[in-house]
Amino acid sequence: MEFDPATLRYDAGGLIPAIAQEHATGEVLMMAWMNAEAVARTLETGRVTYWSRSRQAFWVKGETSGHTQDLVEMRVDCDRDCLLLLIRQTGPACHTNRRSCFYTALRGGEETEIMAPEDVTD
Amino acid sequence: MEFDPATLRYDAGGLIPAIAQEHATGEVLMMAWMNAEAVARTLETGRVTYWSRSRQAFWVKGETSGHTQDLVEMRVDCDRDCLLLLIRQTGPACHTNRRSCFYTALRGGEETEIMAPEDVTD
Repeated sequence: MEFDPATLRYDAGGLIPAIAQEHATGEVLMMAWMNAEAVARTLETGRVTYWSRSRQAFWVKGETSGHTQDLVEMRVDCDRDCLLLLIRQTGPACHTNRRSCFYTALRGGEETEIMAPEDVTD
Repeated sequence: MEFDPATLRYDAGGLIPAIAQEHATGEVLMMAWMNAEAVARTLETGRVTYWSRSRQAFWVKGETSGHTQDLVEMRVDCDRDCLLLLIRQTGPACHTNRRSCFYTALRGGEETEIMAPEDVTD
């Protein structure tokens, strides 16, 4: 069946959550949002493009930082209201320069930082 | 720092997305939603508990199906508006009896089913 981004289920704001997972390691790097056009652009270009809720604009991941995400495969869940993006991440995915945004673990009731920022000086 | 579920950032409906990942394999199994009480219950009991938006009720994963999720570790993202749950899944995670909800891949512009339902007859 040919895929049409319009067949996904978007929330009231026209957005769908997209989970980015490093395809080689399985590490979950981040979660961000897409609208139908961002889904289409990501599939067309192979460059992961989100919708920035704070800036209300398309967000080609890494366009300014260079920390791009190349799409390996997009997957749709059973309810068609969430996307899984298998990607190749260049540099850290998080704006804090950590490899993943999920660098805070809850251990023994405490917040524990489990990942340090990477050195990204050019 | 002691963790307090009230410090997470919930959406207008009081919910936060939670990604369930099989801790042993790294496979992303599903995404569902929690409210602050569901976060607290999950941490207290070690049994993953979501908030069902359709039923407007707590949803102890596997309570009826037996396909439970035991929490190995909960992680918080940089914006505190998304959770990653490292879990031990018993049986399939998806209500279609597939191991993961993300069983539809987009390949060559087509929707492709990449995972069959498991045999879960008792």
